[in-house]
Amino acid sequence: MTTEAKQGTRERLLDAAATLTYRDGVGIGVEALCKAAGVSKRSMYQLFESKDDLLAASLEQRTSAYVATLLPAPDDGRTPRERILDVFEQVERQAGEPDFRGCPYLAVQIELKDRSHPASRVAHQVKANLTGFFRREAEQGGASDPELLARQLSLVFDGASARAGIGADTLTGLVAPTVTTLLDAAGVR
Amino acid sequence: MTTEAKQGTRERLLDAAATLTYRDGVGIGVEALCKAAGVSKRSMYQLFESKDDLLAASLEQRTSAYVATLLPAPDDGRTPRERILDVFEQVERQAGEPDFRGCPYLAVQIELKDRSHPASRVAHQVKANLTGFFRREAEQGGASDPELLARQLSLVFDGASARAGIGADTLTGLVAPTVTTLLDAAGVR
Repeated sequence: MTTEAKQGTRERLLDAAATLTYRDGVGIGVEALCKAAGVSKRSMYQLFESKDDLLAASLEQRTSAYVATLLPAPDDGRTPRERILDVFEQVERQAGEPDFRGCPYLAVQIELKDRSHPASRVAHQVKANLTGFFRREAEQGGASDPELLARQLSLVFDGASARAGIGADTLTGLVAPTVTTLLDAAGVR
Repeated sequence: MTTEAKQGTRERLLDAAATLTYRDGVGIGVEALCKAAGVSKRSMYQLFESKDDLLAASLEQRTSAYVATLLPAPDDGRTPRERILDVFEQVERQAGEPDFRGCPYLAVQIELKDRSHPASRVAHQVKANLTGFFRREAEQGGASDPELLARQLSLVFDGASARAGIGADTLTGLVAPTVTTLLDAAGVR
């Protein structure tokens, strides 16, 4: 394969892995992944050591788009309170989409049940970065305990997306009042 | 098989399904389940239509023990606020156990990604019953909006157990202050 063809094959595999894993779970077979990508198993194994590596790479590749959709741009002129609330508006918006199945980085860790799996490590880091975002905003917003507020917001984020993902809640009228209450209690005005 | 032998086989299968699914996920194979239960596949299929039915029955069977561990006895003389906080103390305690992997009824729904699966239906009902418990306590505790508080507490419950289950948080110093803040905001003293 030329470098360009390899790149195309790689991208198709990453897309198929991200899409099918999100829809069907980490148990998705190599055959199904290769079929969806239109790639032979031989080609797949020339590019990735294993399905585990493909899965980790597919999560990694989606991260920047995920973060860009979810988090406000740095220094957008809004207050930390507004910026935090904006993240939860995005969660509520995403939860309204018909194919929403919750946060992919939470789901993959719950499904794999193996913290040392390469995909779990990628997902763990993405979630830690989100908590880091909340912590910085909490500090800048003058929270009485920025670490506690960051953990609370991460908990609400994961609880909300998990419950919406399984159809236990729509999040409408739930997330904004919950986050507002926590921000108020932490003194972030 | 005698009725007694059938009953024993059935219970071993239910136990194996509950234990292995919680530890390894819903992708666990029929071979592994039967091996762990010390039961032939033929015997399994005489008792259960399919692995899906076995999984649903294993969740159903565990429900009463799960509820008994988690929820306070009715009319135990404590206030609704104390009874609600007690549930979250149980979650924090469970989260400290080495083999804790989060709420089994949340995990199975996230893993199956199929709301019509018999096991998803069982799990959905168990979670709906927990929200019902919170709603009744919220009403009795004079919450300004019992429905909102019940949804908030369910969200915290699932967020907390999911995050502890994947090792993203220990819950120490997190759950009690969060629930207390929500109870205070709802006027449940």
